[in-house]
Amino acid sequence: MTDTTQPQTQIPEHGGTDAGPAVTCDFSTNAHPLGPPPAVLDAVLAADRQRYPDPSYSALRQHLSDWHGVAAERVLPTAGGAEAIRRITLAAMLAGVRRVCVPQPGFGDYAAAAQALGLTVVPCLDADAMVRAMDVPCLVWICDPNNPTGRTLAASEWAAIDNARQRSGSRVVVDQAYEPLRLHGASSIPPSLTDQVWRLICPNKALGLTGVRAAYLLAPVQDDWRDRLVALAASWVLSAEGEALLRAWAQSEVQDELADSHALLRDWVQEQQGRLASWGFDVMPGSVTPFWMARLPELGADSELDPELDLDLDLGSTRRKMAPIEPTRTSGTGQQKLEAAHALQAAGSTVATGITVFPVMPHTPPATPAALLAALRHHGIKLRDATSFGFPGWVRLSVQTPASQMALLTALHQVLGPHHVVRRRSPADMPSLLPLPPASQQDPQ
Amino acid sequence: MTDTTQPQTQIPEHGGTDAGPAVTCDFSTNAHPLGPPPAVLDAVLAADRQRYPDPSYSALRQHLSDWHGVAAERVLPTAGGAEAIRRITLAAMLAGVRRVCVPQPGFGDYAAAAQALGLTVVPCLDADAMVRAMDVPCLVWICDPNNPTGRTLAASEWAAIDNARQRSGSRVVVDQAYEPLRLHGASSIPPSLTDQVWRLICPNKALGLTGVRAAYLLAPVQDDWRDRLVALAASWVLSAEGEALLRAWAQSEVQDELADSHALLRDWVQEQQGRLASWGFDVMPGSVTPFWMARLPELGADSELDPELDLDLDLGSTRRKMAPIEPTRTSGTGQQKLEAAHALQAAGSTVATGITVFPVMPHTPPATPAALLAALRHHGIKLRDATSFGFPGWVRLSVQTPASQMALLTALHQVLGPHHVVRRRSPADMPSLLPLPPASQQDPQ
Repeated sequence: MTDTTQPQTQIPEHGGTDAGPAVTCDFSTNAHPLGPPPAVLDAVLAADRQRYPDPSYSALRQHLSDWHGVAAERVLPTAGGAEAIRRITLAAMLAGVRRVCVPQPGFGDYAAAAQALGLTVVPCLDADAMVRAMDVPCLVWICDPNNPTGRTLAASEWAAIDNARQRSGSRVVVDQAYEPLRLHGASSIPPSLTDQVWRLICPNKALGLTGVRAAYLLAPVQDDWRDRLVALAASWVLSAEGEALLRAWAQSEVQDELADSHALLRDWVQEQQGRLASWGFDVMPGSVTPFWMARLPELGADSELDPELDLDLDLGSTRRKMAPIEPTRTSGTGQQKLEAAHALQAAGSTVATGITVFPVMPHTPPATPAALLAALRHHGIKLRDATSFGFPGWVRLSVQTPASQMALLTALHQVLGPHHVVRRRSPADMPSLLPLPPASQQDPQ
Repeated sequence: MTDTTQPQTQIPEHGGTDAGPAVTCDFSTNAHPLGPPPAVLDAVLAADRQRYPDPSYSALRQHLSDWHGVAAERVLPTAGGAEAIRRITLAAMLAGVRRVCVPQPGFGDYAAAAQALGLTVVPCLDADAMVRAMDVPCLVWICDPNNPTGRTLAASEWAAIDNARQRSGSRVVVDQAYEPLRLHGASSIPPSLTDQVWRLICPNKALGLTGVRAAYLLAPVQDDWRDRLVALAASWVLSAEGEALLRAWAQSEVQDELADSHALLRDWVQEQQGRLASWGFDVMPGSVTPFWMARLPELGADSELDPELDLDLDLGSTRRKMAPIEPTRTSGTGQQKLEAAHALQAAGSTVATGITVFPVMPHTPPATPAALLAALRHHGIKLRDATSFGFPGWVRLSVQTPASQMALLTALHQVLGPHHVVRRRSPADMPSLLPLPPASQQDPQ
């Protein structure tokens, strides 16, 4: 009995819902901020849950294959993108692949799936790194546009990867989860390559229904991994509602509605980036999607308490009407004010914004990125900490509605204080591309 | 690059929905014939699909752990029983287990999951066979009550299995999918054993919502496989609606409603078995569930065409009112009648029952079990062929509503002909237990 792997005890970190109290304004999710097209939600809710789906998903696969213009046997339904990632990684392991190339920064599940199976993970900062890593047959993950940066590969990068793929006998999987949310330009993937790689289509983010677990893989024209992936699927891997979502997805009306939303999203992105720039958020350039990486404001120097001004617990009558305990303006030294604020909080004092009820935080401007994110989270506002992507001090932000943007600005005002001074960084501070060295590579072989 | 497994190209055979036209009366599913308790369906439909579920499922796991009286870390949500079976089999493989003991007859996914990973499957006819197979550390599947037989283990069998488990260092997983549908008696599993085995709880069948993919595992008190199973889970493995289903499941009102339905199900089982006995269906004794194995009527001797009587296409005015083409009584030789029936069918003639519209089948009494099942399927009625369980000529039948039972009898009348003679088999024909030798064992090691 040989134990070939070291089990992890941690699950991957994600944006979106967490184990804490409800998030009111979720800038950490990549789901479409407008929510689902009504026709899709209707189809999902109308799905017949009282029967098993057809275990072979014949009708659905035919529908999707007609939509994509590929043979039906190339369509493999999955229980969401994450399940597809697990299954294809397992197929790779069973086929003898030992090295998995993942984008860095990138969605954590590519690496988590490989590590759970004892495979070597090679984080790749760019296409060049990926090409260099492909000196043995690898499983290669490309996310285009990329999560979390929103960046997209150039035609020359695709060509280099394709060369390395053919030379090494590697399998390339292109995660196209964010293709339908591409707001600028078009994919540069060569049409000839789309039939030679695995493609992962995850419509639930673009459709604003991330709680429905549904996606599908498009297999290459010829690949003996296809049969293996079918054999590795749990029976009824896709739920009845998941089947309904995928069926609705591949319809012109739904695609048109989605495309029509892009102009609005572009406007909102511009507004949100402008508003946050005034608070010292620096945007990493290059995103073509409604999400992007941003460096948090500089903290620390502004965090000293001004004994006269900083402890402003009176948040204004318009935001106080649901408060069970009347917020109290205190006076005294900074230390006394802090103690009073802690006492208020211990007593359960809460203050309502127009959007949500949240506990009053003592007004100590946070000195660290983690403290800032925690303070915003207490206000019901979640940003995605990019530390697990290898970017401490950064967040991934998604565009949200103007109302949510205002709620974020209000919360920043309360958390950082009205006298927060934005320090302009010099252009040299901004990474032109991906600044971190690859994470450590372990090879269990 | 060593390929350690032979991929299957076939997916396991199942009851329930298939790729054919809609089934009107589905005797092949094990789902509760009354469908979901309204409160559960409401909860499922009200689930927030616009957000990811909490990836750690903290609140749900606490709710279920409170319900079961176990520690929360022992609760592992899964995307249905089938996903749990895949994941635990993979954990076994990674831990070095090479032999998987499965009940024979039994749910096909236990073996399919093992075979897809290249593990040795040992089909076990009974507890004795299971004990004998446990001479190395094994993954052992027990389904109690068993699918498809509906039988349950005696206390002495549990004791023998527990002894072998401890002696061999095997992991035992008890699939309790049908425990909430146990209509007679109670489980004989020793309370001390429930904390030492893995238990798989799949409420979607008892709740009549098999299209929702949701289940959970209860880990033993101490087992290092727990962390591995967590690490092997796809992110957001359980959908938002699946989370809602499991939350609703572990509530007294829902459990009471389910328990209250048992008396009705017992009555219906008795009625259905009696009605089918008059058509020559022999019930395999021992089922404690609303499903059971039954041998199909003897065919062949009655299948010769009576030239005057057999081609009775006039199905009576009460069942004709939706027919787009008036069914036609034909006369002539059997061969002529057959040709006429084929011509009618080619012309799209359909006849309506009170329940569904189905194509007229030429009245050739089926000569084989497969032909009988296909003919019933053409009438919108599905029985689960037990051939893949190792029982050719048998079916698994679930209890259905009296209306569905009548539809089955009507279809039998039409398919077998009004003059079908039931041959009484001698008691010696009925297997007292499980008559077939184990399927071939392949050991890839």
